[in-house]
Amino acid sequence: MNLSNIYRPVENDLKKVDRTLEEITDADFPLLSQLLDYTLKAGGKRVRPALTLLSGKFYVYDLKLLVPMAAAIELLHTATLVHDDIVDNSPVRRGKPTVSRAWGENVALLLGDYLFAKAGSLVAGTGNLRAIKLFSETLMTISAGELRQTAVTYDTARARDYYFAWIGDKTACLFSTSTESGAILSQAPEEAIQAIREYGHNLGMAFQIMDDVLDFTGEEDELGKPVGSDLREGTLTLPTILFTEYYPDDELTRKFIGKKDAGDITAAVEKIRNSKVMEDCLALAEGFCLKARRAAEGLPDNRARKSLIDLVDYIVERRK
Amino acid sequence: MNLSNIYRPVENDLKKVDRTLEEITDADFPLLSQLLDYTLKAGGKRVRPALTLLSGKFYVYDLKLLVPMAAAIELLHTATLVHDDIVDNSPVRRGKPTVSRAWGENVALLLGDYLFAKAGSLVAGTGNLRAIKLFSETLMTISAGELRQTAVTYDTARARDYYFAWIGDKTACLFSTSTESGAILSQAPEEAIQAIREYGHNLGMAFQIMDDVLDFTGEEDELGKPVGSDLREGTLTLPTILFTEYYPDDELTRKFIGKKDAGDITAAVEKIRNSKVMEDCLALAEGFCLKARRAAEGLPDNRARKSLIDLVDYIVERRK
Repeated sequence: MNLSNIYRPVENDLKKVDRTLEEITDADFPLLSQLLDYTLKAGGKRVRPALTLLSGKFYVYDLKLLVPMAAAIELLHTATLVHDDIVDNSPVRRGKPTVSRAWGENVALLLGDYLFAKAGSLVAGTGNLRAIKLFSETLMTISAGELRQTAVTYDTARARDYYFAWIGDKTACLFSTSTESGAILSQAPEEAIQAIREYGHNLGMAFQIMDDVLDFTGEEDELGKPVGSDLREGTLTLPTILFTEYYPDDELTRKFIGKKDAGDITAAVEKIRNSKVMEDCLALAEGFCLKARRAAEGLPDNRARKSLIDLVDYIVERRK
Repeated sequence: MNLSNIYRPVENDLKKVDRTLEEITDADFPLLSQLLDYTLKAGGKRVRPALTLLSGKFYVYDLKLLVPMAAAIELLHTATLVHDDIVDNSPVRRGKPTVSRAWGENVALLLGDYLFAKAGSLVAGTGNLRAIKLFSETLMTISAGELRQTAVTYDTARARDYYFAWIGDKTACLFSTSTESGAILSQAPEEAIQAIREYGHNLGMAFQIMDDVLDFTGEEDELGKPVGSDLREGTLTLPTILFTEYYPDDELTRKFIGKKDAGDITAAVEKIRNSKVMEDCLALAEGFCLKARRAAEGLPDNRARKSLIDLVDYIVERRK
């Protein structure tokens, strides 16, 4: 299972999305062009735009609408990463210094704003009011979710619920918007829109859990950032949360609670990755995968549906 | 000439805009409600939403569209202020600590994103694609303009042009969107849309010049921030730029060029405010006022037109 096979039904059209993004880098002053080039050509798996295109393959596949929508989804995603890297004070993204490290936080802040606006402008160009509303609400959910997260104080009993609410807002919401917008713009019937939205949401939940697992189990050169980055930045994700649930009296746990500071991070990462919680994280991700698969199975049977289902398996098998 | 008289034709409807903004503060977790309350009830002159409503008074005055649009304009304005205060590291806004000082830069960043999204969502609710596109492009112009400004190095020969381009992007653009959107949503004919857009642009240019003048000539308790704040934050505005043009060999000028640092700021502010450049700033503002007045005179003659024209005079006579 690899991504090129999964993307095959929309391979050429994904190149059109890339071209749309490249055209955007041709801005009206050098700094902006340079920044757009740096962030938009940084690679990435393009999962979200691929989801929009694949989700458009069940009814009226209209590239004039789907390509700008898919590009807008990727722009919105990039904008949130640029702002997140300021908030988390992250040094590295996809193997390169973050914009906030390379150009400073002010430039990163303004670039993120520009990317949000450009994304909104592309979606407006589809002329589809439902897609436009969905898109605005997505950015509201993402930013409100991050704000809520800044206010959360650590509470072992509620940490898991908070985590699921948080990744629902920060990741699954954009995944479901990626799929739902593809369905809306291809004139899918309401039932199919809901199924594909459900698929996107659950895929996104599984994707984020796996991302958080890989942050512990991956290798630095595959991840493009140091292992245990989340913990180093004080972000407690599912593996750490399960660890504190299972081992409430462990010395490590007592260091986390309330403080978001784990002292010797490398040892903490090691301890968590070697504990049984990693397996439980995978089981939780599998639960979301199952729901995603079931939702996809309610769609018309075609090559795109196979890709959506294969993508579910890819998500839990991936190494980066 | 006072604002209540000018706002009279839309007085009740401006209260509806305030109610729309108040409803937004009722968010789904306490921190967000508190932040929205702090920023949206902070007063301000509500010039931009008033402009949208007044601009809607010439053809089909439809409150279902104009009130959400006016609220969105105020939200977008607030969002840009919240982000600007991070970029400029400003301690005080409207007599209160800025969000970034009171809650930290991360919270301010996310709040700004949320406000952008909420604004976009309100505009989407109008269902008017032209207004939606105009709105996205406005945010693009504002953020690109600020980015360009971060890259500008000081050059006396070009500083004035850069300044006008910058205030065009950061202020006049939102003013013209305020007026143009009111015209669009009231089904104004194309010629009237262009006239009212032209009015908004020129009013915005004059407004920003006067803001920059008041930063030198105003009193701290009227301004809600220390006199000379721009210079203190390293921002060179029209009075300083004209000063460096007129007195290229002045010791003060040599301190500015290339450095954006004026040593003893209080003495510098004093020197600039007592120089002849202040009068020339007013003359430049008057030039834009004249254009705004002429554009407004092309509109149908009614009470709203009188308000738009009176607002031009108010702008140059105001003390805060």
